[in-house]
Amino acid sequence: MKIICTKSDLLHGVNIVSKAVPSKTTMAILECILIDASTNEIKLTANDMELGIETRIIGDIKEKGIIALDAKIFTDIVRKLPDNDVTIETDANLKTTITCEKAKFNIIGKSGEDFSYLPYIEKNYYISISQFTLKEVIRQTIFSIADNDNNKLMTGELIDIKGDEFKVVSLDGHRISIRNIKLKESYDDKKVIVPGKTLIEISKILTGDLSSEVKLFFTDKHIVFEFDNTTVVSRLIEGEYFKIEQMLTNDYETKVKINKKELLSSIDRATLLVKEGDKKPIIINILDGKMELKINSFIGSMNEEIDITKEGKDILIGFNPKFLIDALRVIDDEDIDIYFVNPKAPCFIKDAEEKYTYLILPVNFNSVAN
Amino acid sequence: MKIICTKSDLLHGVNIVSKAVPSKTTMAILECILIDASTNEIKLTANDMELGIETRIIGDIKEKGIIALDAKIFTDIVRKLPDNDVTIETDANLKTTITCEKAKFNIIGKSGEDFSYLPYIEKNYYISISQFTLKEVIRQTIFSIADNDNNKLMTGELIDIKGDEFKVVSLDGHRISIRNIKLKESYDDKKVIVPGKTLIEISKILTGDLSSEVKLFFTDKHIVFEFDNTTVVSRLIEGEYFKIEQMLTNDYETKVKINKKELLSSIDRATLLVKEGDKKPIIINILDGKMELKINSFIGSMNEEIDITKEGKDILIGFNPKFLIDALRVIDDEDIDIYFVNPKAPCFIKDAEEKYTYLILPVNFNSVAN
Repeated sequence: MKIICTKSDLLHGVNIVSKAVPSKTTMAILECILIDASTNEIKLTANDMELGIETRIIGDIKEKGIIALDAKIFTDIVRKLPDNDVTIETDANLKTTITCEKAKFNIIGKSGEDFSYLPYIEKNYYISISQFTLKEVIRQTIFSIADNDNNKLMTGELIDIKGDEFKVVSLDGHRISIRNIKLKESYDDKKVIVPGKTLIEISKILTGDLSSEVKLFFTDKHIVFEFDNTTVVSRLIEGEYFKIEQMLTNDYETKVKINKKELLSSIDRATLLVKEGDKKPIIINILDGKMELKINSFIGSMNEEIDITKEGKDILIGFNPKFLIDALRVIDDEDIDIYFVNPKAPCFIKDAEEKYTYLILPVNFNSVAN
Repeated sequence: MKIICTKSDLLHGVNIVSKAVPSKTTMAILECILIDASTNEIKLTANDMELGIETRIIGDIKEKGIIALDAKIFTDIVRKLPDNDVTIETDANLKTTITCEKAKFNIIGKSGEDFSYLPYIEKNYYISISQFTLKEVIRQTIFSIADNDNNKLMTGELIDIKGDEFKVVSLDGHRISIRNIKLKESYDDKKVIVPGKTLIEISKILTGDLSSEVKLFFTDKHIVFEFDNTTVVSRLIEGEYFKIEQMLTNDYETKVKINKKELLSSIDRATLLVKEGDKKPIIINILDGKMELKINSFIGSMNEEIDITKEGKDILIGFNPKFLIDALRVIDDEDIDIYFVNPKAPCFIKDAEEKYTYLILPVNFNSVAN
């Protein structure tokens, strides 16, 4: 194989496919990036068997062929090359020479034949969504997947398509995050659970461009994302997702309108006094026109007041401050509405059109001690 | 005590003195920042017994007093306060209330009387140098102090003043870094060894302003740096520094003029192939008009050529690439001169006026294997 491409095109491609290189594996071939120039295009591929990414780069194929190169070493080399044309040439013994200006690297590759190509996916049916929107809905929900494998379903996100409605849901047993998007067209119903890791990696690759589309293809076992010159294939998580409808309600006893930034800053300050692992709740006391926030820990105490608009009853309720912070950080609205039922029931942070809904369970606290 | 100052003034002061708070100590009082408003000014102090920093901040003293507050918690709180006036008030039980807008923190302080104030230093004689210059000479020499305590002298830097010459030296047994500065005036001779840690911390505080001066005071056991509203006091390292003059020579067999950036990039690329702890030398072959660089490791090999201007003999010599990189990174010149004697003698990177001199010992290598 002998190919020539620019350093920047090569680096761009390598950075994309690297997202699918596993950090730990016993199969050395999975730690490689495959360069496939066996046809008339140059494709880079990485695949950890759960998640596979393939991207096409522009270049000149002088001699067709394929080679698998250690992803870490190859990436490091490409990153540090001068900003000029790069030639990659292999011989029959898999010796690979990477040349750029007067710099010449020799490394030993692996046979491309041992590489696991992406599974072949029948691409009949797809839905289309902008890169910007997909990146946003991931950012606004991914924080509430479970961080351990105890319940596999919780490590993924539900993607639920009904007509022109595109809904993304994540939950971890303490909170639920829901984002609803209107699609430009209507599609057949589809309900899949996508691994959180796939969504995290894909949101790093997406440019966030408003005018550029991502195509989503589905099979029984896989989801495929196609955008720009890149194809991402991920296994789905099998099983039936949680019935979240029965956990949602529109009833409330107290409704609060509050400036999001003020609330976030205040809770953020309060958590200074809480050390890692120390489960001190933030106590929120809602009265006419004001919200009092209070936290007590071994380190000290903080209290603060924020002006609000209130409808309904007063309420005293406690939360894990992290859960509030996580949700508030991803909401872009200046003012938000929070709905409460009672101190033992979840609160809901949601906008009028329910484009987003964040359900957060409260925690018990000893109101006397606080 | 009751004081009022702006969040930004307070944060600026806290960030400065924090540099002298030890990360680990058995004496809880050393983990504190002392706020001293017992006179007509507000002083913040931290002191780890080796290094002490005091800075004055602007503010309003409503009630005189002193208090010592845990540095980490206090810094975190100040950092997250709204950008407005901050009131700090203490009561007889050392309960400290920090108020800013509607946020109010309560933490327990420690008695200021237990705090170790900075030692009193007689300030008769001082030398003056710009913040910019001091920051630069530290940056350009600090990397070659020893990183372990086996030889205490090597963990510090020599500051050697003779007339109007200000010389800074560091060495670690494999290399020597020397910076020479011309002072505006002549001073009495002075030779002290300053702990590397002191210099690292002080260079973080220095603004690097060309027009702002630092005053250096000396005693038998201490050095004092005074600049802006800040005083830094550090113990000196006791002992006789190494005689470096006998290691320096102006004789050479080969002189090379080379573009610094090209050389640095090339060595930087080569080190990709060297894993941590793997002591592979970079082999440099100097011929008429070109320098060949070569590295071989278990991962692969790299070679590269750089155009040079050469005087004298050809030479083949090996170096620890890190030592070359460290020196090249801090040199600001576009082209540099490197002087060689033979493959077993140190090379010298220095400018014509010897404002800087970097001596680096070569390493043995098997020229057949490479």
